[in-house]
Amino acid sequence: METQERKRIPVAVLGATGMVGQRFIELLQDHPWFELVGLGASEKHNGRPYAEVTAWRLTGSDMPVGAAQMPVVACTPEALPDVKVVFSALPGEIAGEIEQAFAQAGVAVFSNAKNYRMAPDVPLLIPEVNANHIAAVAQQRKQRGWPGFIITNANCATTPLVMALKPLQLAFGVTKVLITTLQSISGAGYPGLPSYDILDNAIPYISGEEEKLECETQKMLGEWREGQGFVDAPIVVSAHCNRVATREAHLECASIELGRNDVSPEEIIAAWENYRPASQQAQLPTAPEHTLIYRHELDRPQTLRDRDAGHGMTVTLGRLRRCPILSYKFVMLGHNTIRGAAGGSILNAEWCVQQGLLPL
Amino acid sequence: METQERKRIPVAVLGATGMVGQRFIELLQDHPWFELVGLGASEKHNGRPYAEVTAWRLTGSDMPVGAAQMPVVACTPEALPDVKVVFSALPGEIAGEIEQAFAQAGVAVFSNAKNYRMAPDVPLLIPEVNANHIAAVAQQRKQRGWPGFIITNANCATTPLVMALKPLQLAFGVTKVLITTLQSISGAGYPGLPSYDILDNAIPYISGEEEKLECETQKMLGEWREGQGFVDAPIVVSAHCNRVATREAHLECASIELGRNDVSPEEIIAAWENYRPASQQAQLPTAPEHTLIYRHELDRPQTLRDRDAGHGMTVTLGRLRRCPILSYKFVMLGHNTIRGAAGGSILNAEWCVQQGLLPL
Amino acid sequence: METQERKRIPVAVLGATGMVGQRFIELLQDHPWFELVGLGASEKHNGRPYAEVTAWRLTGSDMPVGAAQMPVVACTPEALPDVKVVFSALPGEIAGEIEQAFAQAGVAVFSNAKNYRMAPDVPLLIPEVNANHIAAVAQQRKQRGWPGFIITNANCATTPLVMALKPLQLAFGVTKVLITTLQSISGAGYPGLPSYDILDNAIPYISGEEEKLECETQKMLGEWREGQGFVDAPIVVSAHCNRVATREAHLECASIELGRNDVSPEEIIAAWENYRPASQQAQLPTAPEHTLIYRHELDRPQTLRDRDAGHGMTVTLGRLRRCPILSYKFVMLGHNTIRGAAGGSILNAEWCVQQGLLPL
Amino acid sequence: METQERKRIPVAVLGATGMVGQRFIELLQDHPWFELVGLGASEKHNGRPYAEVTAWRLTGSDMPVGAAQMPVVACTPEALPDVKVVFSALPGEIAGEIEQAFAQAGVAVFSNAKNYRMAPDVPLLIPEVNANHIAAVAQQRKQRGWPGFIITNANCATTPLVMALKPLQLAFGVTKVLITTLQSISGAGYPGLPSYDILDNAIPYISGEEEKLECETQKMLGEWREGQGFVDAPIVVSAHCNRVATREAHLECASIELGRNDVSPEEIIAAWENYRPASQQAQLPTAPEHTLIYRHELDRPQTLRDRDAGHGMTVTLGRLRRCPILSYKFVMLGHNTIRGAAGGSILNAEWCVQQGLLPL
Repeated sequence: METQERKRIPVAVLGATGMVGQRFIELLQDHPWFELVGLGASEKHNGRPYAEVTAWRLTGSDMPVGAAQMPVVACTPEALPDVKVVFSALPGEIAGEIEQAFAQAGVAVFSNAKNYRMAPDVPLLIPEVNANHIAAVAQQRKQRGWPGFIITNANCATTPLVMALKPLQLAFGVTKVLITTLQSISGAGYPGLPSYDILDNAIPYISGEEEKLECETQKMLGEWREGQGFVDAPIVVSAHCNRVATREAHLECASIELGRNDVSPEEIIAAWENYRPASQQAQLPTAPEHTLIYRHELDRPQTLRDRDAGHGMTVTLGRLRRCPILSYKFVMLGHNTIRGAAGGSILNAEWCVQQGLLPL
Repeated sequence: METQERKRIPVAVLGATGMVGQRFIELLQDHPWFELVGLGASEKHNGRPYAEVTAWRLTGSDMPVGAAQMPVVACTPEALPDVKVVFSALPGEIAGEIEQAFAQAGVAVFSNAKNYRMAPDVPLLIPEVNANHIAAVAQQRKQRGWPGFIITNANCATTPLVMALKPLQLAFGVTKVLITTLQSISGAGYPGLPSYDILDNAIPYISGEEEKLECETQKMLGEWREGQGFVDAPIVVSAHCNRVATREAHLECASIELGRNDVSPEEIIAAWENYRPASQQAQLPTAPEHTLIYRHELDRPQTLRDRDAGHGMTVTLGRLRRCPILSYKFVMLGHNTIRGAAGGSILNAEWCVQQGLLPL
Repeated sequence: METQERKRIPVAVLGATGMVGQRFIELLQDHPWFELVGLGASEKHNGRPYAEVTAWRLTGSDMPVGAAQMPVVACTPEALPDVKVVFSALPGEIAGEIEQAFAQAGVAVFSNAKNYRMAPDVPLLIPEVNANHIAAVAQQRKQRGWPGFIITNANCATTPLVMALKPLQLAFGVTKVLITTLQSISGAGYPGLPSYDILDNAIPYISGEEEKLECETQKMLGEWREGQGFVDAPIVVSAHCNRVATREAHLECASIELGRNDVSPEEIIAAWENYRPASQQAQLPTAPEHTLIYRHELDRPQTLRDRDAGHGMTVTLGRLRRCPILSYKFVMLGHNTIRGAAGGSILNAEWCVQQGLLPL
Repeated sequence: METQERKRIPVAVLGATGMVGQRFIELLQDHPWFELVGLGASEKHNGRPYAEVTAWRLTGSDMPVGAAQMPVVACTPEALPDVKVVFSALPGEIAGEIEQAFAQAGVAVFSNAKNYRMAPDVPLLIPEVNANHIAAVAQQRKQRGWPGFIITNANCATTPLVMALKPLQLAFGVTKVLITTLQSISGAGYPGLPSYDILDNAIPYISGEEEKLECETQKMLGEWREGQGFVDAPIVVSAHCNRVATREAHLECASIELGRNDVSPEEIIAAWENYRPASQQAQLPTAPEHTLIYRHELDRPQTLRDRDAGHGMTVTLGRLRRCPILSYKFVMLGHNTIRGAAGGSILNAEWCVQQGLLPL
């Protein structure tokens, strides 16, 4: 990696003024492999400095000085000419065309938007879960005639679920998943949820979220087969999504049916604790020391106390116990705007560098 | 009921200074059948006026003037001599012996404590769910030699669940229930949950709660058989209980398996909306106009917006949809300190009056 | 009032879909003197039923059935032809012209908007504070040639302050007021404050609010002099406004300098508790039993516990003690969307009926 | 400092299991000058490991591994024999005697308790405010015959106030301060404030807090005069203290009267921004890069966004504007459990090391 450290890959953030865009900027600060050289957002900003057009919303940091003076340009390849990689935090309404334009212009797009997630030639990638899905990129580029490509990351609530399930799928098989989420307000973006709607309240509905959890899980835990495409995992998922008054991280309660009846709790915990996928072994810059942490306390993970584990990149598990209906139940927690959004996309790009896919 | 209105039954509240005790006092104010004549709490209060020894915690009301001047006495039959009924808001550590002493002294005890809930001769009663379980009282009195008796109400999280399930059990059968709760802080009593533990947090654990949900549901939806006792309903329940930062009411997400495969959503909603059990028809003073309300909006019930339905005595349902794993999933909400505690106990006592069990 | 009860005055709400508009509709339900016959909002709604175009935000109630079916029309006198009174919950950007159009069309406008509050011929009215300011209406109509008129109510944070100060001004004189507010999120309307901005946060700034507190107080505690107009009270006000994570009601901490040095705390409390202005004696339908309540507990008023005093129309006071810098300090609390907005406007209209100003 | 780094001073924390005790342990981890070798708490723990007897409450970190295995012993000099410095997080009820015992045993006590704060020979110390007050230690030791000594830190709400005032006092004089606080729940310790008391609420009272703010400010901004003792600063302080639903940091709104009438806002901001007291220049390990930061945004400082400035050791200022009653008003924010408690005490000890007072 020596050379990469010396000459970093020029990258840009699309949708730079929003909350996920801000997370990208925060996490790309001093990145050893990527150099933030461009910021794309609404055309109306017209080249004005980022600090002038953006109210910084993140609470753990101030706006990075480097980004503050950077001009905010339109989200077009022409306006961001020297960029090899873009991280897209664009809203779904406009992400589709813009991301395609960049891929056509030879740029590698790492997207947080939902538009291409379920496309049959686009990886929905978490390196620790389905690293080999990047094989789809070759077909994507060939079929679509794109010199660049698009790789997406999963919905913020799907992310901790598939990360928790993957080691169990490998070790025991997983056939059914019944999941109920308690999701943070930051999942709705900014301005997102009005405070009058959520203070002293819980809302048992998030538009489109349950469907995403159900189908993204099947794709991500499925296989990429050359010549055949993505084959869904034979896992039935039933989701119930709730919004609660927490700032960051989604807490999720799952009951699962395993492929075998004779699995002990100790084996499950061992499967989680010993999970070291190839991407983890590669020690990517944004990867946490532990992909998964199992907490043995009775009342963990908790949204507030565990969300920053591994700088927001670790998924924390706990409360494993038998389920009288399916096989086991447990709780998991993942940071929605780091692991489930910006951090996840950056890790995807790092995996592509590590695998020689980048720079193109 | 004319005569009862003219001469009300003298009642007392045990554990009068705590949060559920306060709810009892609030709800008994101006009750048409019951007259609050006594307040029991720790002996140390030694007859001092209620207003002197109690900080009123309820937010919708001030301390009722009548109760304010009442002396707070020990929780013994001797200290509360003319009382025919006691409502017990005692903590489990001391409820057992005290409630027994009152039953032995010929008093009817309506208890919110957990001690006798699972006893084989004590009804765990919600009039709209298992009204005929009061038949157990005859055996209880005979077996134990008590001139009085004890009737308990369910855990605050079990209450909305069994109320939602009962009409479905009657109409279609229910075989499995997977339930995840989002419970309010008032469920932990006062002082209960430290604010530092719950502000900006969700906690996936409440001690003993999941077990209560699982076994109380089976008892309440089961039958009382003369000569045989309580027979559990053959329903498997799996619960996951969470605490969230809401003040009142528990929101609960359920997936259920019905006894028949061919039930349509319309039939389920009709079963809920048309549910008029005998106790409902009796128009008891504390009974709400509607036992169950089904909200057709996509995002209801919500903790804040639906908790006061039917003055806190109605359970609100919503979001019925098919579950890919079990038959259906839906959401329910019940007020934990009214329907799930003090209001439920008072309704139980009213049902006993209506059924001629009171006054003894 | 017999006749008025038989034939109620037809009224409409302008800005009916917003949060204050909803409060107007809630409070006008079953009003003895006013009959809600019209709902005005954006033209785009084009006559569709209120229930179709409005998400009901208030949490203590469902949308009134009567309003639900009412067509939502444009905010023009032509679209609301038979209306004698309009209650305006319009935003400041459009309130000015629309309210004027209604006044020109002979309608009495009771406005919650800021536009005319400081106009030299428009009363900024709270009946218990400056009831005789309605004398300005005659000059307003004459000068402007309006067959109707406009009366405004004060900013939601100014309202409890002037209500607390008025009896002291009458009894002792008031010369200086240093006030710091802790204001609820509903003061920002809906959607208002994003939850991500206020959960676990306090914000020491509300745009324009401090200026309003400072100048409205002087106008309201000042006099209307025939031929001379409004004369500000010689009171210096210094305000600091904060937003905190509470749903309803503004808590305000004041230090004041009185006109006399020899006033005892008992005299101040007596001035508050004995305050019975003419409007109070008139027993208007929306007037609370007590305009002001003084709580003697050390830690009252509290936002949550005291906001519903007098159905949200009472201002609650407490913690009176000497100030080492000015004369005294104390705390007050008022419900911002009831007394400080919709309820205040309706009370203003009732006062005009009582004074013979309505119907025109 | 070379030698000190090689051989660190052995220190202990008293009251190690509570919230401030935990902060001490967190902040002493890897401290360059101090080595945590002892943990004192209730005798009942009887030498059991810290991890066994303590539930870790801090949310930004897990319990430090070193402390976890340390035995928890009684708070006596005998039980902590080799310790040169103790940091006391003891509650006021027991702090007095215990701290005295340590001072008598030759230990330097840095206390967060209120007991000795106002004693005439005990410094109430913030190095950036009144560094030379440590001169009182000599007299304290002589008068009391203590081989050790006691130095206290200020109340958590007083701390940011005096830090903001000191540069103004030096430059212009300060004569009056009217201050209203919005204080976080962690200020009440653990379990502290019940969640049912503060969720959706603001409470205008904190027992004893206003008095502390008023008298501690006078002592800290006053002088230590050899032979005469502490002489209060001639500043009149009037405080109003509120509790709000935030986790950490106190937001405070002040109006102040300066000693001169001709001070411009620019001069005040310059006084803050250029403030570099001796202790700051000494670059103590726990000192922040900036003692004071002035934010120019209209709506800063905010509790959530500014509390971690300088790792919780910086006080953030903002919103300076003229006050119509006194000279100026502004807002300040300080982290209550870091700068206002554990971090402040550690900085005090570092200052004593730097000044040659430690080791004794």
